[in-house]
Amino acid sequence: MSLAVVGSVALDTVDTPAGKNEEGLGGAATFASIAASNYTDVSLVGVVGTDFPPEHIQLLESKGIDLDGLERAEGKTFRWTGHYHDDINLRDTLDTQLNVFEHFHPKLPEAARNADYLFLGNIHPALQMEVLEQSSSKFVALDTMNLWIDITKDDLLKVLGKIDALIINDEEVFELTGERNLVKGARLIQKMGPRIVAPKKGEHGCLLFVDDRVFSAPALPMEQVADPTGAGDTFAGGFMGYIAHQGATDFETLRRAVIHGSVLASFTCEKFGVDRLAEVGQKEIEARYAEFVELASF
Amino acid sequence: MSLAVVGSVALDTVDTPAGKNEEGLGGAATFASIAASNYTDVSLVGVVGTDFPPEHIQLLESKGIDLDGLERAEGKTFRWTGHYHDDINLRDTLDTQLNVFEHFHPKLPEAARNADYLFLGNIHPALQMEVLEQSSSKFVALDTMNLWIDITKDDLLKVLGKIDALIINDEEVFELTGERNLVKGARLIQKMGPRIVAPKKGEHGCLLFVDDRVFSAPALPMEQVADPTGAGDTFAGGFMGYIAHQGATDFETLRRAVIHGSVLASFTCEKFGVDRLAEVGQKEIEARYAEFVELASF
Repeated sequence: MSLAVVGSVALDTVDTPAGKNEEGLGGAATFASIAASNYTDVSLVGVVGTDFPPEHIQLLESKGIDLDGLERAEGKTFRWTGHYHDDINLRDTLDTQLNVFEHFHPKLPEAARNADYLFLGNIHPALQMEVLEQSSSKFVALDTMNLWIDITKDDLLKVLGKIDALIINDEEVFELTGERNLVKGARLIQKMGPRIVAPKKGEHGCLLFVDDRVFSAPALPMEQVADPTGAGDTFAGGFMGYIAHQGATDFETLRRAVIHGSVLASFTCEKFGVDRLAEVGQKEIEARYAEFVELASF
Repeated sequence: MSLAVVGSVALDTVDTPAGKNEEGLGGAATFASIAASNYTDVSLVGVVGTDFPPEHIQLLESKGIDLDGLERAEGKTFRWTGHYHDDINLRDTLDTQLNVFEHFHPKLPEAARNADYLFLGNIHPALQMEVLEQSSSKFVALDTMNLWIDITKDDLLKVLGKIDALIINDEEVFELTGERNLVKGARLIQKMGPRIVAPKKGEHGCLLFVDDRVFSAPALPMEQVADPTGAGDTFAGGFMGYIAHQGATDFETLRRAVIHGSVLASFTCEKFGVDRLAEVGQKEIEARYAEFVELASF
């Protein structure tokens, strides 16, 4: 089955303890689409400016990603600049230039409208709702961020009422619910709509709440993280890609989808931007999945 | 096989969002011994004052714990007072009264000297060394804290050179090694002596480094934590108790030992002090172990 991915396509400038990356290919839809392309057909919906480098288009096309929904608008591509601390879990946003993203309204081409699975990357919840209204998907996952929780909570609550799965940082569970306890917070979010809530805990892995059940997934302990930018989006793409490939959303499938998401996210962290994610194939994914089995078995 | 446990026996006063506990039975050796008593014969080595309530002695005896090594000294029992924040992962020490603990030198009676397994709870590393010199155990695990890392690092390094396993908080890995990355930090600690390093991550579970391998254990996601005091000591006691019962320290046994430690620690968090830990039996432990299997399987 196929997957539609909606979100930002960006040029990211980051510096981390491992070095610096200037205007690298980034954005939630980019990471999620490349990750998902390992499992299923992907239609990417987003916008870039006229300055968007053609080699990035070629990379996405080489992954078999359908770019009919990638609009090219007059103006500059969305840019984000961030700085990571020595403690790589901490980062500051130094600059955000929305550029063509500012007036973007997603228009889903036919393949994206008809995709059975839909991932709504982290954009304004009113735009996420516009996408939902165009889509005939049977399973929708959504990501969001503290900004939208703060300034567009009503819009966010509306869209939460219409989705199946929320993928969210643990800190954002608190911001959304006011509840410090992650279990209570996830249960409160389920009451807002999604029967599936996946709070990501960075280097501590991820929890998965499905109805009244819970799964705890480890993260791969890593000696070196070059650049964690996009790891969360990669996770979401791997998660949704695996689900779309299986064509199922039972608890067992969802658990394994979380591990596949974690596998892909661990690759993303190994190099800057999409450099590592874009080069892995089936064999490496399977080998790392086996590492997760070894890591978590008892 | 039997286990000797050395460490503090205390009267703890704590307040948490769930309420207050005045002068409850506490201390590292207490939690560790009760936890381990579910698996193996335990000899407790420690000291209390003449004010130590007889019902606490009765509780420990009811668990079959050998108290020949529990000295009763003139003076008052060690007391600790702590305050937990709304975010239960944060706590402040309000008061510490060493009392009889100040001049304590552990003297191991025969059963403790001959125990095959030894857990050195969090006390001054020079005292831990005194215990080691009296012991003929074949496997030693040690706990420590930031205070000893700060003020008695040379003594700590000496004792680290002579033990098999270090059980430590993730923050303390950084304090001991200067390394923020937990994998690198654990590897540095292995070079100091112990081939086994178990960094505890509180609500995020625990990692276990054994030689060049690693295991990641989840913590039980809990809606309500009444009092986390002693959870780490309970973990260590369950870990060592299971190992002593199995009489083995291979990687598979150590993995399951981490889960047993986590099972017991989850009980400790459910009520104040040892209240919940002291009431669980084999059946509840097995049921919760099965919950961990369900929680972590994929």
